[in-house]
Amino acid sequence: MINTPYLLFLGDAPDMLAAKVAIGIRDWRPENALGQIRLPGCGADLGLADLTLEEAKAAGAKTVVIGVANRGGVISAAWKEVLVKALEMGFDLASGLHNLLRDEGDLVAAAQTYGGTLHDVRVPTVGYPIANGIKRSGKRCLAVGTDCSVGKMYTAMAMEAEMTARGMKATFRATGQTGILITGHGVPLDAVVADFMAGSVEYLTPDNDPEHWDMIEGQGSLFHVSYSGVTLALIHGGQPDALILSHEPTREHMRGLPGYALPTLEQLRDAALPLARVSNPACQVAGVAVNTQHMDEVEARVYLDKVEAEMGLPATDPYRFGSGTLVDALAAI
Amino acid sequence: MINTPYLLFLGDAPDMLAAKVAIGIRDWRPENALGQIRLPGCGADLGLADLTLEEAKAAGAKTVVIGVANRGGVISAAWKEVLVKALEMGFDLASGLHNLLRDEGDLVAAAQTYGGTLHDVRVPTVGYPIANGIKRSGKRCLAVGTDCSVGKMYTAMAMEAEMTARGMKATFRATGQTGILITGHGVPLDAVVADFMAGSVEYLTPDNDPEHWDMIEGQGSLFHVSYSGVTLALIHGGQPDALILSHEPTREHMRGLPGYALPTLEQLRDAALPLARVSNPACQVAGVAVNTQHMDEVEARVYLDKVEAEMGLPATDPYRFGSGTLVDALAAI
Repeated sequence: MINTPYLLFLGDAPDMLAAKVAIGIRDWRPENALGQIRLPGCGADLGLADLTLEEAKAAGAKTVVIGVANRGGVISAAWKEVLVKALEMGFDLASGLHNLLRDEGDLVAAAQTYGGTLHDVRVPTVGYPIANGIKRSGKRCLAVGTDCSVGKMYTAMAMEAEMTARGMKATFRATGQTGILITGHGVPLDAVVADFMAGSVEYLTPDNDPEHWDMIEGQGSLFHVSYSGVTLALIHGGQPDALILSHEPTREHMRGLPGYALPTLEQLRDAALPLARVSNPACQVAGVAVNTQHMDEVEARVYLDKVEAEMGLPATDPYRFGSGTLVDALAAI
Repeated sequence: MINTPYLLFLGDAPDMLAAKVAIGIRDWRPENALGQIRLPGCGADLGLADLTLEEAKAAGAKTVVIGVANRGGVISAAWKEVLVKALEMGFDLASGLHNLLRDEGDLVAAAQTYGGTLHDVRVPTVGYPIANGIKRSGKRCLAVGTDCSVGKMYTAMAMEAEMTARGMKATFRATGQTGILITGHGVPLDAVVADFMAGSVEYLTPDNDPEHWDMIEGQGSLFHVSYSGVTLALIHGGQPDALILSHEPTREHMRGLPGYALPTLEQLRDAALPLARVSNPACQVAGVAVNTQHMDEVEARVYLDKVEAEMGLPATDPYRFGSGTLVDALAAI
């Protein structure tokens, strides 16, 4: 667990694209985002208060979260100056960078001296069990994609928000570093050792109230040859009661795999549902989440209507048109 | 690569069941098995010459392989006496035990002093890439099972032996510790970090002669919720041209998962083939390998005939009746 609330460190991010993690925290857990801290030349702005470390401390911030990608895989001297001072002042640090906080001697030394914690959320900190397949109480929903990066995390986040607003019990369960930083906990599934992948998902989504929904963050795709094993571990460890099919209709090939065509939504359904029913025979496909960012509104509406008719399922772009119809479908399960 | 030939260390194994690794080496790579070394009370006997370390050295053995499971997860003082002496004499050590050679201070010290290598084959030693999905030359065969431990490794080994005997080009590719110790190389797939699983299989089965077959050792099952992600990484990283369906017909539930029924061979085919065709559209199911050890010969023959008729595929028990019909099927691809 990462202590909240956060001060979001934007460093010298050249633009908003580099600040994806910070944007996710601001959008999905605004109560965790007390303010931002920026270095000279920073081209990103979250629209939050610019706070000094002292001001953030006074406001109750507990952890400085590195909310940006860094350049060239190094944590620069300019960054270090702020981060070491934050540790001296009693903050914890949290990061999803590939280069780890724990590999930086000055950060380790300051953390030890001042009693702070360095959270490298890409690295598992738990000895996960091997999955036992025992049926757990409570309900679970998992988004499975035709490809990577089609909006699975966003869909789960949006549905969790809608469910909470309706008074349903729902918890987003993070399986990637962005989701872990946003919520403060989770499993960095892509860094878990093979034998323990499904077990880590069981660990992440334990027994719960019968009417509670775990909204599990999806990863990869059954059709993406680089990461499909991670996806299947999520399906089998997660024991989903409901699958949401996620798709980006304008993509020309699988992400990072020229020559690999995306599957159709029907192919995705036909591959995922029988596998999901191995661990949860009651699993059903509840709806379709489409990322329509590269379509105009008319195109998007026409496409969604077509998917609804063809698949016999509610279809929406949760970002553009809300996730209400998907949540309606879960509520009916 | 582990240096061969081996001296097989049987320790104080209570019985032959504990000597599975040593039996595998003797059966599949007899040229690597120069002899055995046993401690007082050893209840296992491979039928090989009992050699002292000195005799094994004189005969050209390069590595002492721990060919047995140990008790209680400790490497005993009695074992250590032999293993340290082996290092002093210039042997390497190789082990697939959960408790690692490298965690034993006296073995590490002796290895450093005398220049020997400690091979813990459960631990990856290579920084594997993320899979790129690029089509590789040469042919590949993968056994996929209805369950774990249904004879997938044995099937690949038996087929490799038959293919070699026929003058076909074939290489067994180990993905588990037993296979790695038998052949001296491979990828310990269950210990690879999730993101790199499929990439490690690509690494294991590189470009080859067009008519060469990699016989890839299968792991887990698409229907085994604890390990299915490993299986799918094998399917997508391996780009198999041919799948062999592996089955043990008398098993009452999935291994270690009471309440989980085994899938039928049809269900296995219908799940595995579409997924395999993602990375290799030409993939086909070539045959069925059945482990009939719990059936008498008449039962086994009747069962295999039934499977052949129902599946329209050659079906055999490679251990009991040979793998010739499966190899015929590969030769026709």
